[in-house]
Amino acid sequence: MKSFAELIAEKRNGQALSASDIQRIIHDYAQGRMPDYQMAALAMAIYFRGMTPAELAPWTHAMLHSGRVIDLGHIQTRKVDKHSTGGVGDKISLPLAPIVAAAGVPVPMISGRGLGHTGGTLDKLESIPGFRTNLTIEAYTEQVEALGVALIGQTAEVCPADKRLYALRDVTATVESIPLIASSIMSKKLAEGIDALVLDVKVGSGAFMKTADDARELAQTMVAIGEEMGKDTVALLTNMDQPLGQMIGNALEVRESIDILRNEGPEDVRSLTLTLAETMLELGGVDPNRAVEVLENGDALSVFQRVIAAQDGDPRVCDDPDLLPTAPHREPILASRSGVVHRMDTRGIGMAAVTLGAGRAKTDDIIEPSVGLEMAVRLGESVEAGQPLAWIHHRGQGVEQTTQRVLDAIVVSEHAPELRPLILERVTADRS
Amino acid sequence: MKSFAELIAEKRNGQALSASDIQRIIHDYAQGRMPDYQMAALAMAIYFRGMTPAELAPWTHAMLHSGRVIDLGHIQTRKVDKHSTGGVGDKISLPLAPIVAAAGVPVPMISGRGLGHTGGTLDKLESIPGFRTNLTIEAYTEQVEALGVALIGQTAEVCPADKRLYALRDVTATVESIPLIASSIMSKKLAEGIDALVLDVKVGSGAFMKTADDARELAQTMVAIGEEMGKDTVALLTNMDQPLGQMIGNALEVRESIDILRNEGPEDVRSLTLTLAETMLELGGVDPNRAVEVLENGDALSVFQRVIAAQDGDPRVCDDPDLLPTAPHREPILASRSGVVHRMDTRGIGMAAVTLGAGRAKTDDIIEPSVGLEMAVRLGESVEAGQPLAWIHHRGQGVEQTTQRVLDAIVVSEHAPELRPLILERVTADRS
Repeated sequence: MKSFAELIAEKRNGQALSASDIQRIIHDYAQGRMPDYQMAALAMAIYFRGMTPAELAPWTHAMLHSGRVIDLGHIQTRKVDKHSTGGVGDKISLPLAPIVAAAGVPVPMISGRGLGHTGGTLDKLESIPGFRTNLTIEAYTEQVEALGVALIGQTAEVCPADKRLYALRDVTATVESIPLIASSIMSKKLAEGIDALVLDVKVGSGAFMKTADDARELAQTMVAIGEEMGKDTVALLTNMDQPLGQMIGNALEVRESIDILRNEGPEDVRSLTLTLAETMLELGGVDPNRAVEVLENGDALSVFQRVIAAQDGDPRVCDDPDLLPTAPHREPILASRSGVVHRMDTRGIGMAAVTLGAGRAKTDDIIEPSVGLEMAVRLGESVEAGQPLAWIHHRGQGVEQTTQRVLDAIVVSEHAPELRPLILERVTADRS
Repeated sequence: MKSFAELIAEKRNGQALSASDIQRIIHDYAQGRMPDYQMAALAMAIYFRGMTPAELAPWTHAMLHSGRVIDLGHIQTRKVDKHSTGGVGDKISLPLAPIVAAAGVPVPMISGRGLGHTGGTLDKLESIPGFRTNLTIEAYTEQVEALGVALIGQTAEVCPADKRLYALRDVTATVESIPLIASSIMSKKLAEGIDALVLDVKVGSGAFMKTADDARELAQTMVAIGEEMGKDTVALLTNMDQPLGQMIGNALEVRESIDILRNEGPEDVRSLTLTLAETMLELGGVDPNRAVEVLENGDALSVFQRVIAAQDGDPRVCDDPDLLPTAPHREPILASRSGVVHRMDTRGIGMAAVTLGAGRAKTDDIIEPSVGLEMAVRLGESVEAGQPLAWIHHRGQGVEQTTQRVLDAIVVSEHAPELRPLILERVTADRS
């Protein structure tokens, strides 16, 4: 049997590891029998050498089976989830899951928390008074069956090897590896008990993937893993050149999500939500036109209300969003010159919201649910000097720094930008 | 101040680390404040990205100063050592150090143990009954002053950061990195209190560096570090296409070393010893012709005898080598066909000796000093079927496996080999 050092050397030299060696690596790492320093060296070798599809499937499979794999087989219909690689203002999961569930496709959704410039679905949900995301897997399973959707956080039972590896990658500069990102995402999603998955891979200044090429590679890698593991998987590359919608910040994003479910709200959020919903319905074997129907007839909002109630939240927020935490102050950030909104450093805008307390710079930072940014302009719009670019919803702290960061992040010039569409590409398995 | 993860990312991305960041990395690693998993990731990034001369100097400097740097400044003459990258049958240090010391240049020599296919000077010396290599640094310093040479092992005080890093590299597949090899060797040598250094970089089937290109790169890297640290440094690339001399195994190599000091012994060992001695004398400012003189007039043997006595060994072995441990059996390995010795897998021959007990496969293996191989043929020589290729000196164990390994390692064919000279190249600092 080869030593771990020999296996690291094989990967370092550009060889592909065998499926059985990969199984042993992940199994022993999860059990603490392969030390962190060997995994760190292996992860760095993978950063440089990549992984072949023949390696990625057993790697993801071993990650997935390092913990509990939820079985929703007793729910006869096809279960479909969505995963986003994370963007600024990306609250799509909140309106999306109720729409798809209301249309008849169960959505078993296990989400994460926000870190850095991107927010997290769990943090947004928890800004609803009383809302609990720490259901047991049993309660989660029952709720998916009863309401068609449950919105919970990762438990220690799911993919423990991924948790350990992710924490290690974070401190060893091995996060930015497409095969490691892809297998980490896919192992967690495949543990949910889904039959199919839609991936929203963000591209642009507010995304982890800055270029369409990188995003496409990540999307193709994840789709290949999903298909290899027997799950229909479709990825959309979507635009993150500017924040999604107007609102950035937890309660503010819940508010905007409720607007969408009331058939209102910003056009880009509505459009992306419906496109993702239609794709999920297709994969679930349900007429995609149902998405607009359940949005317009109020069924989707009603499912969201029932989910909130089931997870101990206050469902009245859907009728009266002022019951959500609200910041005491709303102050404008004014354009210093006239012109056209030429470019946004969307990551910088996300970090401006973190400065206010809407997100986390470190994992143990505490979030202030009420604060955030409300964008007043979009790319390509004309602005006059002195007109608001955005409003800060704040509690008296971080205003000056946030204002400066937002001003630094929004470029107003005489030149109109080249606008890219919201949906850039669709990536599916090559079944040729 | 940048985090270690940020510094690893810089190296991973191909940037050069600053001198102050390198100092902090090595210092904190030595103190246990940078964990092994971060150093493992960094070492793998260095494997792929290399280090610039501007990085190697502070890296080596920080390694060197992680522990005690021996000061031999009170010895007025220039002190010169030799380091070999390790080969099979390479006992050169044993005759070399007494020759150079007898000729008037002090040799402060701190050596290592054998691992894998190569032997270690310490293990060879310890096959002399009573010989101690664990002198204190104080005793070592006094002996260099009194006899011109001391032959000791590394102490825990010298380069602790290198010890920790070397053990980590060994289990993370990051040994084979030229900048890491070069800085590890140079930091240990520079801690000895030397003014100049001669490097014997082995090339060929029995060496770590299989090609002259790799060996030259390693040699140039070490020479550059030495010169940067203010020490005259010269490297010779020497031939390891076959074992050096006839003897492989600890007491057997001491015996052959005594032969050399008696002005006898195999021509290749004598020739390489004298070339290295002459180079060391030149760097020490002494007439290089003194090397042959002290060898022929017996002064070098006499120094060796005094060193053995000073380090508690039995100096009578120089007059009566049969006082060395001797294996009870000597058995030939016979050629299975007639022809010319076309090629040797010298590493395989080294591993055959390990099988007998002459070396270590793992660091905690115990060495049997008496056993080993005595080569009977050299590259290019004609052999008849049934003629001995080598003799096994053994204690009744491992004979069959050793025989097979030696037979596998020596290729006899109808084609004469292309013979390379013993000294392939000389690498010095480019002072243009």
